[in-house]
Amino acid sequence: MNHSTDTPVAVIGLGLMGQALAGAFLKAGHPTTVWNRTTSKADHLVAEGARLAPTVGDALEAGSLTIICVTDYQAVRELLGGTGIELNGTMLINLTSGSSAQAREAARWAEQRGARYLDGAIMAIPRAIGTTEAVILHSGPRSDFEAHRSTLGALGTVTYLGADHGLASLYDVAGLAMMWSVLNAWLQGTALLGTAGVDAATYAPFARQIAAGVAEWLPGYAEQIDSGSFPAEVSALETDARAMAHLIEESEAVGVNAELPKLIKAMADRSIAAGHGGEQYPVLIDEFRTLRDD
Amino acid sequence: MNHSTDTPVAVIGLGLMGQALAGAFLKAGHPTTVWNRTTSKADHLVAEGARLAPTVGDALEAGSLTIICVTDYQAVRELLGGTGIELNGTMLINLTSGSSAQAREAARWAEQRGARYLDGAIMAIPRAIGTTEAVILHSGPRSDFEAHRSTLGALGTVTYLGADHGLASLYDVAGLAMMWSVLNAWLQGTALLGTAGVDAATYAPFARQIAAGVAEWLPGYAEQIDSGSFPAEVSALETDARAMAHLIEESEAVGVNAELPKLIKAMADRSIAAGHGGEQYPVLIDEFRTLRDD
Ligand SMILES: NC(=O)c1ccc[n+]([C@@H]2O[C@H](COP(=O)([O-])OP(=O)(O)OC[C@H]3O[C@@H](n4cnc5c(N)ncnc54)[C@H](OP(=O)(O)O)[C@@H]3O)[C@@H](O)[C@H]2O)c1
Ligand SMILES: NC(=O)c1ccc[n+]([C@@H]2O[C@H](COP(=O)([O-])OP(=O)(O)OC[C@H]3O[C@@H](n4cnc5c(N)ncnc54)[C@H](OP(=O)(O)O)[C@@H]3O)[C@@H](O)[C@H]2O)c1
Repeated sequence: MNHSTDTPVAVIGLGLMGQALAGAFLKAGHPTTVWNRTTSKADHLVAEGARLAPTVGDALEAGSLTIICVTDYQAVRELLGGTGIELNGTMLINLTSGSSAQAREAARWAEQRGARYLDGAIMAIPRAIGTTEAVILHSGPRSDFEAHRSTLGALGTVTYLGADHGLASLYDVAGLAMMWSVLNAWLQGTALLGTAGVDAATYAPFARQIAAGVAEWLPGYAEQIDSGSFPAEVSALETDARAMAHLIEESEAVGVNAELPKLIKAMADRSIAAGHGGEQYPVLIDEFRTLRDD
Repeated sequence: MNHSTDTPVAVIGLGLMGQALAGAFLKAGHPTTVWNRTTSKADHLVAEGARLAPTVGDALEAGSLTIICVTDYQAVRELLGGTGIELNGTMLINLTSGSSAQAREAARWAEQRGARYLDGAIMAIPRAIGTTEAVILHSGPRSDFEAHRSTLGALGTVTYLGADHGLASLYDVAGLAMMWSVLNAWLQGTALLGTAGVDAATYAPFARQIAAGVAEWLPGYAEQIDSGSFPAEVSALETDARAMAHLIEESEAVGVNAELPKLIKAMADRSIAAGHGGEQYPVLIDEFRTLRDD
């Protein structure tokens, strides 16, 4: 048994996700203390060797790190802000979903009480926890992450993003936006091809190949954004806009939803109206950076 | 020299794309006849060994196949429908961009005049033509494609999609929808992370990994669509919708455009309202299949 599996840990919050987290620690051999508002949810974990803490305060003292994973940040505050709860000297890793602002605020709040604090975001379903497929993002002081990296490794593929506590949450929602966008574009294509009798299984490999291929362009396109210069090396935005019009027309002609194509074109049209028609696609970053009231 | 590079070919239309196509045939060693309305665009091709046809009719007789690549289908019809032009016995491959309906109509029109006809779509920029990077989609009678596959191979990676002449156009716009969607989701994430001082180059590899990872799910998700059954094996749509709300809130909180997140959520919300909240994401196909007046 290597050092890291000796490390005692605590998990506060035993919903679907908290149970999976505690289960993965137990499976990896960590002495694991658990706490949940509804005590019965700890039963099967206790049967597997977990220790049930009588109070949140007790759980915080039991581990060399404490994971907290509850519904939202308000629940976190209610749990950790209770009277008689000592945060001084604890190592908190908050895997509750929330916004970057909430993460930064929770970090300030915990640090003012003497805790060390990492924020995290789980890009996985409970069933994947404990496998390399479960990507868990962390942000906060690097030294705290490094000190607990091997322990956290029991939960999945753990990644450190930077010192700003808000990063885990931002990467999380950015990743979700990518996930839904790939799925929606695939559904748009599946619907289009469906009108010609092509089934989803026939179209899917094509969609997969395009998505994976375009993904490879991103690092190169990122250089244009960071340099703020968008020469039309591949094609100009106004050429793209003509093809976008084709996509809208084709969708409408075959009776398929055209909302996504229309949004794609609307954003390009605005950028063209702002004088960027001769530049390359990533120049649209200006549109994405701008909050619009609508 | 293998058989295929002996095959005489003709290219009608020498815009940016037609010039690249003719250039690739010449480079591969094909006797190449060209025609363009504005004759001067043929000059450098003639210097490289192309033969300039005096008329469209002459070009059609010169090759064992004729590529036509002009602005739109109306230009195709004007060129091929001229008096004294004999289509009987010709092999036309129309790489002009258009809709699936235009492709099917052009096929009927050409076939009625005794021509064999393949429709095609070029998923590449002129500079890539002649390399494996240039993906060129074809649809129409399989035997015609197979008979000319090796000749067409001089232009790029040629793919056959099926007998329905509309398929090349449908796959083309479906692929473009995927391309713009991956790019837009990446821009959304880049804008979100930019508010925390993360540069585009730092974020891009993360976006690439998510896009490529989600692309791998598509064939599996396609099975749900083809079977019409959407069990929530990974997560239920109503769980996704809560995370979509997070994405909108986070975008607005940091002052980033939220139109794409809002469209993502609006489509999910409609599906939930239609009673699909407990099913899995691909159930949204019903929304994409439905044209909405807005
Ligand atoms: N499930 C997933 O697929 C998934 C994936 C990624 C991220 N997450 C995130 O992980 C977190 C937990 O999700 P989950 O799926 O475990 O949710 P869940 O099954 O609904 O469990 C919620 C947990 O929060 C506790 N809780 C809520 N309010 C509380 C309060 N005021 N005081 C004390 N405890 C409170 C609940 O205690 P009781 O048992 O007493 O009600 C329960 O332990 C959420 O932020 C979620 O977004 C979940
Ligand atoms: N360029 C790309 O990156 C790209 C990529 C994929 C697909 N495509 C598609 O390829 C096709 C051609 O594009 P392109 O870039 O070559 O366009 P382009 O540079 O604008 O050239 C247009 C061509 O069409 C000819 N033409 C237009 N109307 C005509 C008419 N009524 N009669 C005779 N000739 C006519 C033009 O002749 P003149 O020279 O006499 O004007 C010229 O040869 C389009 O459908 C385009 O969507 C292009």
